[in-house]
Amino acid sequence: MEEILLVNGPNLNMLGTRQPEVYGSMTLPDIEKMVTLAAKKQGYTLKCFQSNSEGKIIDFMQQHASALGVIINPGAFTHYSYAIRDCIKSINTPAVEVHISAIYQREEFRHTSVIAPVCIGQISGFGDFGYLLALQGLIDYLCREEQDSDSDK
Amino acid sequence: MEEILLVNGPNLNMLGTRQPEVYGSMTLPDIEKMVTLAAKKQGYTLKCFQSNSEGKIIDFMQQHASALGVIINPGAFTHYSYAIRDCIKSINTPAVEVHISAIYQREEFRHTSVIAPVCIGQISGFGDFGYLLALQGLIDYLCREEQDSDSDK
Amino acid sequence: MEEILLVNGPNLNMLGTRQPEVYGSMTLPDIEKMVTLAAKKQGYTLKCFQSNSEGKIIDFMQQHASALGVIINPGAFTHYSYAIRDCIKSINTPAVEVHISAIYQREEFRHTSVIAPVCIGQISGFGDFGYLLALQGLIDYLCREEQDSDSDK
Amino acid sequence: MEEILLVNGPNLNMLGTRQPEVYGSMTLPDIEKMVTLAAKKQGYTLKCFQSNSEGKIIDFMQQHASALGVIINPGAFTHYSYAIRDCIKSINTPAVEVHISAIYQREEFRHTSVIAPVCIGQISGFGDFGYLLALQGLIDYLCREEQDSDSDK
Amino acid sequence: MEEILLVNGPNLNMLGTRQPEVYGSMTLPDIEKMVTLAAKKQGYTLKCFQSNSEGKIIDFMQQHASALGVIINPGAFTHYSYAIRDCIKSINTPAVEVHISAIYQREEFRHTSVIAPVCIGQISGFGDFGYLLALQGLIDYLCREEQDSDSDK
Amino acid sequence: MEEILLVNGPNLNMLGTRQPEVYGSMTLPDIEKMVTLAAKKQGYTLKCFQSNSEGKIIDFMQQHASALGVIINPGAFTHYSYAIRDCIKSINTPAVEVHISAIYQREEFRHTSVIAPVCIGQISGFGDFGYLLALQGLIDYLCREEQDSDSDK
Amino acid sequence: MEEILLVNGPNLNMLGTRQPEVYGSMTLPDIEKMVTLAAKKQGYTLKCFQSNSEGKIIDFMQQHASALGVIINPGAFTHYSYAIRDCIKSINTPAVEVHISAIYQREEFRHTSVIAPVCIGQISGFGDFGYLLALQGLIDYLCREEQDSDSDK
Amino acid sequence: MEEILLVNGPNLNMLGTRQPEVYGSMTLPDIEKMVTLAAKKQGYTLKCFQSNSEGKIIDFMQQHASALGVIINPGAFTHYSYAIRDCIKSINTPAVEVHISAIYQREEFRHTSVIAPVCIGQISGFGDFGYLLALQGLIDYLCREEQDSDSDK
Amino acid sequence: MEEILLVNGPNLNMLGTRQPEVYGSMTLPDIEKMVTLAAKKQGYTLKCFQSNSEGKIIDFMQQHASALGVIINPGAFTHYSYAIRDCIKSINTPAVEVHISAIYQREEFRHTSVIAPVCIGQISGFGDFGYLLALQGLIDYLCREEQDSDSDK
Amino acid sequence: MEEILLVNGPNLNMLGTRQPEVYGSMTLPDIEKMVTLAAKKQGYTLKCFQSNSEGKIIDFMQQHASALGVIINPGAFTHYSYAIRDCIKSINTPAVEVHISAIYQREEFRHTSVIAPVCIGQISGFGDFGYLLALQGLIDYLCREEQDSDSDK
Amino acid sequence: MEEILLVNGPNLNMLGTRQPEVYGSMTLPDIEKMVTLAAKKQGYTLKCFQSNSEGKIIDFMQQHASALGVIINPGAFTHYSYAIRDCIKSINTPAVEVHISAIYQREEFRHTSVIAPVCIGQISGFGDFGYLLALQGLIDYLCREEQDSDSDK
Amino acid sequence: MEEILLVNGPNLNMLGTRQPEVYGSMTLPDIEKMVTLAAKKQGYTLKCFQSNSEGKIIDFMQQHASALGVIINPGAFTHYSYAIRDCIKSINTPAVEVHISAIYQREEFRHTSVIAPVCIGQISGFGDFGYLLALQGLIDYLCREEQDSDSDK
Repeated sequence: MEEILLVNGPNLNMLGTRQPEVYGSMTLPDIEKMVTLAAKKQGYTLKCFQSNSEGKIIDFMQQHASALGVIINPGAFTHYSYAIRDCIKSINTPAVEVHISAIYQREEFRHTSVIAPVCIGQISGFGDFGYLLALQGLIDYLCREEQDSDSDK
Repeated sequence: MEEILLVNGPNLNMLGTRQPEVYGSMTLPDIEKMVTLAAKKQGYTLKCFQSNSEGKIIDFMQQHASALGVIINPGAFTHYSYAIRDCIKSINTPAVEVHISAIYQREEFRHTSVIAPVCIGQISGFGDFGYLLALQGLIDYLCREEQDSDSDK
Repeated sequence: MEEILLVNGPNLNMLGTRQPEVYGSMTLPDIEKMVTLAAKKQGYTLKCFQSNSEGKIIDFMQQHASALGVIINPGAFTHYSYAIRDCIKSINTPAVEVHISAIYQREEFRHTSVIAPVCIGQISGFGDFGYLLALQGLIDYLCREEQDSDSDK
Repeated sequence: MEEILLVNGPNLNMLGTRQPEVYGSMTLPDIEKMVTLAAKKQGYTLKCFQSNSEGKIIDFMQQHASALGVIINPGAFTHYSYAIRDCIKSINTPAVEVHISAIYQREEFRHTSVIAPVCIGQISGFGDFGYLLALQGLIDYLCREEQDSDSDK
Repeated sequence: MEEILLVNGPNLNMLGTRQPEVYGSMTLPDIEKMVTLAAKKQGYTLKCFQSNSEGKIIDFMQQHASALGVIINPGAFTHYSYAIRDCIKSINTPAVEVHISAIYQREEFRHTSVIAPVCIGQISGFGDFGYLLALQGLIDYLCREEQDSDSDK
Repeated sequence: MEEILLVNGPNLNMLGTRQPEVYGSMTLPDIEKMVTLAAKKQGYTLKCFQSNSEGKIIDFMQQHASALGVIINPGAFTHYSYAIRDCIKSINTPAVEVHISAIYQREEFRHTSVIAPVCIGQISGFGDFGYLLALQGLIDYLCREEQDSDSDK
Repeated sequence: MEEILLVNGPNLNMLGTRQPEVYGSMTLPDIEKMVTLAAKKQGYTLKCFQSNSEGKIIDFMQQHASALGVIINPGAFTHYSYAIRDCIKSINTPAVEVHISAIYQREEFRHTSVIAPVCIGQISGFGDFGYLLALQGLIDYLCREEQDSDSDK
Repeated sequence: MEEILLVNGPNLNMLGTRQPEVYGSMTLPDIEKMVTLAAKKQGYTLKCFQSNSEGKIIDFMQQHASALGVIINPGAFTHYSYAIRDCIKSINTPAVEVHISAIYQREEFRHTSVIAPVCIGQISGFGDFGYLLALQGLIDYLCREEQDSDSDK
Repeated sequence: MEEILLVNGPNLNMLGTRQPEVYGSMTLPDIEKMVTLAAKKQGYTLKCFQSNSEGKIIDFMQQHASALGVIINPGAFTHYSYAIRDCIKSINTPAVEVHISAIYQREEFRHTSVIAPVCIGQISGFGDFGYLLALQGLIDYLCREEQDSDSDK
Repeated sequence: MEEILLVNGPNLNMLGTRQPEVYGSMTLPDIEKMVTLAAKKQGYTLKCFQSNSEGKIIDFMQQHASALGVIINPGAFTHYSYAIRDCIKSINTPAVEVHISAIYQREEFRHTSVIAPVCIGQISGFGDFGYLLALQGLIDYLCREEQDSDSDK
Repeated sequence: MEEILLVNGPNLNMLGTRQPEVYGSMTLPDIEKMVTLAAKKQGYTLKCFQSNSEGKIIDFMQQHASALGVIINPGAFTHYSYAIRDCIKSINTPAVEVHISAIYQREEFRHTSVIAPVCIGQISGFGDFGYLLALQGLIDYLCREEQDSDSDK
Repeated sequence: MEEILLVNGPNLNMLGTRQPEVYGSMTLPDIEKMVTLAAKKQGYTLKCFQSNSEGKIIDFMQQHASALGVIINPGAFTHYSYAIRDCIKSINTPAVEVHISAIYQREEFRHTSVIAPVCIGQISGFGDFGYLLALQGLIDYLCREEQDSDSDK
């Protein structure tokens, strides 16, 4: 069975407790369970990880560099973690960036995602459901890649 | 049967003929057929429209302002059509912005989407499949809205 | 009888239906009727036009280039239509820019009016009444111009 | 009889003497007389004030904070007097900003009006006549406000 | 006989009537006739088109995508039409940008041409004669391309 | 008995009347009395001054240049009064800048304090109580300075 | 007994050893002892924490999210830790930002505090004493809040 | 005898007492006496004025608008007083800007002089002696002007 | 016979040896010969000059200030030589700026041409052929100028 | 034997596996061995450390603050770790910044090194060999420092 | 007899021939003679030099580094010659920058003087007379310096 | 024997005489001798050149374009000589940029090196010793290149 990583950045362990009108009422374990189930149905294992520490997220992704893909909600690291960006680039695994709220509606941060440039796609604004969309997008990408490499033979 | 709009902006009628390595090999009619089918399966009619003219896109959306939602790939208008942005705001219909390629990877344009701030969500980088993700995201949103209004009764 | 143009840009045909607390409850036909009447009282015909299309607005103004003056609410085109700006300059007719809400209060757009530099004056923030003020301002300008050219003889 | 303030900022006491082709040939007393008369006809008293000193303008507006409204031509203070802006906000009286020339045509100053964001409307480019337009705009606003508060009862 | 497109953007149909000291006294039909003749002499047909509408210019270029080359004076669209830029890129036809006046002398617009990056060359400042220079430049380019593809055989 | 200056800038004489939810309900005389009392308890006289005029504030500080220290709430002058900044520097007296609300939460002004660079410290966000904190901070500073100069002997 | 958090960011464990003329000669344990004592006198327990790691600071604050308030000197994180900012926002506890030196005097960093916008107040420039001022400011805030919620009953 | 104005802005009444290594040890009265004497020798009367208030400086210059010329050291107003700039422009009298220190060496202020654009010349960096140079420069200008107007007859 | 100058800036003596796919395979002497011939045919002498030194280019243009016109490829000086710009302005001779490659396609330099503002026209992107276009453009300009001065008589 | 620190930032543990054409084929242990040997030959011990965590790098450097010098390749932290910068400053040990590739060739990051300002020197672009150059540069510095302090005696 | 250098930058050898209404009608030799005479009267020799070449100006100043002072009109080099700036700094001779026209009135160049920061003073706007003012300013500086060094003995 | 160029830009002929605490006490001939010797030991000839003239440096590098490599300290040209940058690119010889002081510590210049992007590496901050490091870095590069081309055979 093939592995996909689900990585959540700082403060996302607080989901379901903070501003539910913006971030929904599901907790992070709820979301991880939901996405795990969806992945399983399509024949993938989900490896879940959350940390408030940039270094630990990088450690985790390096240790699981053989995974087929990464779904990552970088939280606040979206705006400045060039180290996570370098990591995704170096492990050479397709990554999808997901945000629960529509980050381009919030004026709050001037800097947009520094991580987006190394991701194959980006999904934002669909609440918890965005994780499922990210999973579908990633799996579709993996299938197309496989077909391409098959047809290359 | 309930209606969803699928709007494509300038030059997207050329899909499948231009830079297939970036934009895929499906033509716009192929995509419209694919999304129409997917919508039908879930009980929605898709109303498709493409134009190279900003004014005609606005005309179209105003005339179908009673639709349940909009899936829009604004093409180059992404970067400067404040008029389309105003239109989406004024018809008060949930809109999802979709881009075939990962626009945040391209350095080409400095201005990011001026339309994103009035959309409920944004999907980019998943090729033609992105239209299907947008449809799913929009339908999920519509269902949640309906539940909310039901539970308000 | 002498002609004045009243030009309204994209989405202004939706007036009276969208955000009435910001844009008032009069519809565009209501406004056009009101300004036509006021113009008539002072001996001027009003030629009204609205379009969502930049090109059609330019076509209209070129075709009526012999008008005595223009009252224009460019809507979203305010922020980027250098083509409308060039048009006003080229037809060489005095133009007054009018905005229903106080555009300098809204942080939403960073770019201020690109059309203002070719207008004789600008009025914003007075709701529907602003159109009447624009008419008075334009007529006062026309009278002064006439006096000047009379006294030059 | 109800009071409206007419405030003119630095160097506007020189009107009629400086660059008449830009600023007209009426002196400030001429203008004050003209606007006073127009106000009187509609049942309002005009309280006129000019000063080259930012502090005195604020003192004046604070002392007459019970006025129904303010017409203000801030002159050069337009571009930097955050103190006058705060004053208008704090006295909580509707203010209209008026400029004799079309300030958005002049490239001279980079900063646009810092006062506009606290005004209900802005009029520029109509020469001395702009003061009369400002008066009409303000009175129209006051009437609508009164109606609203009446209909609230 | 092989076809070259001559495309003129908004307000260029007013040539010869507006600011002759800047834009010359030839009308657009005069120019089109002049360039048609010059093209004919070298064995090329010229297809002329002018529109004030961005969308119609894109429609026209898409419909004549098989042309050998494009000479385009985008007028005000120079500064913001990313849609025309995308169009030129997508039809994959060599384009030459021409401006009647020396656009880099005018401080008026801050943004330089957004279209130049997809053109093979750019000519500005030579008045009506610039169209003839553009034609020569384009034909020279076409000949070199042909030689290259011949020598590749 | 040793003197400390308490200087309040434009519109702060309106405290207690304007936006009490932001600025508290104490009037300026209330605050001056409160701080005077607190100063007295620790053996200092407080000299209070408020003006809407930049020039008068400078006059006042120059005339009391022999004071031990200054507590200043510059109000709107915070953002542009380089003259007050120069004054504080020239009288060579330790100054503490105090703001009633948390100025770094308000997006309203782009420019942060031009006065802060010449102050020993800055306190913001604590409402009226901020004046007392400023007093404590200043006195602590004065005591440490005294100790230092004593220990130098 | 009620708990207040005292959080110090990277390199602040070096206090008392580095640039004493700028940062004072007290060590961090000295400061923690001093503030603990002052808190105790007013009936509060102080929970002290220092770390060079952004992630650990967030972990700590999340684990003590039930505290009454936070006093935080973010050190270098002041300038870029959007993650700490998000954390403070999510735990929904009043926070006071304190800096030992007057950070607005140092030209060194261009970015001002990204954390300030989620703090109730900010104190800088008073050396070690600033921690005591922060404590007083926080306690005053807590008392007022309590009164407000009491009077709401 | 013909009159020249010598105007000094805020804090310049402190000359000779503040940072003598930068601003010299002469007091303002010393400087005024020195320049008065030099002017007298060449047949001019000097009218001296200093104020910390922008408004009073404008009042003074308006009241002496018939003077032959102005020597002005605007102090901190250099960087933001558009009102003084407007005043110099409106009184239509040749002005020379003088600064005691070399203002372009100081990084302190980002904004250079907003007053320079309306002055005939600018002198900085020569200490007190700069006032004498300014006088010579102004007189030379006045003589040339007189010659020109003589030769025009 | 009348003289036209052909000036080439730094490193253009390396043409034909460096990046032929960008700059063509003709050497500078080849180009000079080609343009000389074309000029001769129309009755003009070409004076050619290349230097890596800004000063020598200015010396050359000053010494030949009586020439009818200048064709200049400033190479890297395009981006910063205000001295060459001043020179062209001072010798008061019509100049055409030519670039071999399409400089507006290269993101490499942020600054566009500082020389363009003093040239009558600009040609870029046509390879070596651009020099011939420049010659034609210049000659057309000279003829029109002559006609104008003839018709003035 | 005297100690020098060799610190490598995030993702540099992946060296030799990622983009070998850019970063060479040596692994980090290879490099550490190579530099250790070179240091040993000149009488220095090398203490090597790599971490993906900013906090751990700071911890490490604080714990070895008595080292003679630091060679640091901050990886992605180069661009934003003000905390590492503060750390180097606070431990007061000479540091050399080294980058494997020529970072000033990559347009990818807008911000250059925030760490460089606290380093004695910087070496970039020489691949793995850069570490040896950094070692030589550091040792040369240490010798000169020692000589200076010797000659001071 | 003691030597002062008078250095003029590019195109200033054209003085008297170019835009006399801006730059006066004196030629450079006229100016050099005039300043030489004035210098002689006060016991100084003037060494004059003009070049269009940055390198030669630096050579000249290095070779005469023993001069007492430099009067320099850098012409266009004002805006970018960091090399001349470094030269003035390195020869350690007091320099005065002079400009014939009021450079701060011209919007033409965005960059102000890069040379000013290493000059003791700056004079602009006084035409040819500015050179004499510069001489007076320099001599006054030299005398004060001498007095200071005398009084130090 | 194979040749390496050592190029020093403007004012570097003054080394050893200017600010020895920043730039060391070795003169340029001293440095050239030292590097020549070091090169000789490893079998390379060093060709040394210094000029204050940008053009002469380009001439020199073009004339020695067959050299194996270039060590260049561009001095002030670092910040603006796009012509030297183009030269290095066009001669296609590996170049190493060296700076005596740590240029990224100096705030003085805003623009960083425009030459770095065409160099293989950059060394700064190591004083005179930096030239030796540059030599070692260049030779290491040359050896690796040779090995690569050998192994390609």
